[in-house]
Amino acid sequence: MHFLSESHLDGGLLERRFDLDQVPGILWTPALTASAPVPLILLGHPGDLHRMHPRLLDRARQATAQGFAAVAVELPGSGERPPIAALEQARADLRRAIAAGERPPADVVDRLVLPLVEQAAAEWRTCLDAALALPEIAGPVALSGGVIALGVRLALVEPRIVAAGLFAGSHVPRSILEEARRVTIPVHVLLQWDDRDNDRQAALDLFDAFGSAEKTLQANLGGHTGVPAYAAEDAARFFARHLRPVPYEGRTPRRSQCDTPQKSSTMP
Amino acid sequence: MHFLSESHLDGGLLERRFDLDQVPGILWTPALTASAPVPLILLGHPGDLHRMHPRLLDRARQATAQGFAAVAVELPGSGERPPIAALEQARADLRRAIAAGERPPADVVDRLVLPLVEQAAAEWRTCLDAALALPEIAGPVALSGGVIALGVRLALVEPRIVAAGLFAGSHVPRSILEEARRVTIPVHVLLQWDDRDNDRQAALDLFDAFGSAEKTLQANLGGHTGVPAYAAEDAARFFARHLRPVPYEGRTPRRSQCDTPQKSSTMP
Repeated sequence: MHFLSESHLDGGLLERRFDLDQVPGILWTPALTASAPVPLILLGHPGDLHRMHPRLLDRARQATAQGFAAVAVELPGSGERPPIAALEQARADLRRAIAAGERPPADVVDRLVLPLVEQAAAEWRTCLDAALALPEIAGPVALSGGVIALGVRLALVEPRIVAAGLFAGSHVPRSILEEARRVTIPVHVLLQWDDRDNDRQAALDLFDAFGSAEKTLQANLGGHTGVPAYAAEDAARFFARHLRPVPYEGRTPRRSQCDTPQKSSTMP
Repeated sequence: MHFLSESHLDGGLLERRFDLDQVPGILWTPALTASAPVPLILLGHPGDLHRMHPRLLDRARQATAQGFAAVAVELPGSGERPPIAALEQARADLRRAIAAGERPPADVVDRLVLPLVEQAAAEWRTCLDAALALPEIAGPVALSGGVIALGVRLALVEPRIVAAGLFAGSHVPRSILEEARRVTIPVHVLLQWDDRDNDRQAALDLFDAFGSAEKTLQANLGGHTGVPAYAAEDAARFFARHLRPVPYEGRTPRRSQCDTPQKSSTMP
């Protein structure tokens, strides 16, 4: 993890851009790090860190306000990384099918998603190795959003990931649906009920498939980018429950109290 | 509202049983009432206040810990109220269909649910009149759970109800689905994904039907009575957002802070 730049942002947030074996990435940490190393949230995204930066930064602020570090790495073939001809072709085929009002053919989805999942899962695990080697980060690790098929794969194969918050907003190959049946970590799935880019029934089928003993689907009215603020808050509480099961005695005590169910003892 | 008994319970909770035109009910209020009158949550249930009391009390504790009053009234033909022959017959027909593994016939659901909704909606509105006439209660009012068809009707016809937290766990006549299209208040629907007593697709169709600009479906793994603690907490936050849009400066400040999104300013 070779750091390229370092910015101290509002709200006590340190943003560092890095290169890791020619994969660009961004790491966010609470600036005034507690003496103890912090858990980590892997921030997923649809590709192109530059374009996604404002939204990633919002999510990173939420993570660091909870006392967690956050990290994002570029997807293969996206942003400043060299394009991958086969992915470009599959993406064009997918767009053509959607523009024609067709259900995207399974082979097109497979050609687009499966190689991406294969390569990105390996790269994100390398990123985890590097991030967890830093003295200020210790784990456990949660996964948040991004290409949902990649989330399923990582939830299945990466034992350091203890919880996955997923966003139903992209296409899922049949083989990934089968992988979901073997996922056992807690999952929290956000579904935008009117997301045009998403097949609602496919999202419900994927949620049904997860083998996890704790799984929650939260569906909200609105399109792909219209996730309401309270849904983001509910997702943040999901991460807090699993990344820090005991109350956090760090810098943001109010927030961590919210994650502990308040019994009637709050009334004397 | 004729009070029959008064109990001071743990956690600073006053429980009063009452009779209102021969309908039994229970009112819960924070014992050390703030100077200002409080909002109210109407607690729905499937009938039989005696049997439901432990679970109702848990929900009432959550409401009063947030600084709200809560009230429940017995359903027509349930608990200590005189049985209603037509309802008993329809209920037996429904049980027979379910035991035979059949989808309950629409006319049986209509015979069971529609008269219940008609009578209960009138009685619950009378209860609202009486509760809001008490000096310690002012509204606004939220509805929480119970027979979902009754919830839809009340959400549509009772303007004092500003938000409805509904529990997908009972049968919905076609005409009630149509009423849902005209509901405009915010709704938060809990769905237990593996609820045997419930038709999952019917619950999704009902959620889809609501005309509300703010609607959330939260589905969790488990059966009818297996709602996880965090789902109850998320529902409580839904009520707090709509019953007290500004931060509550009363007796339970920690909890109300949880309902206000914490920006990065919590980190200096």
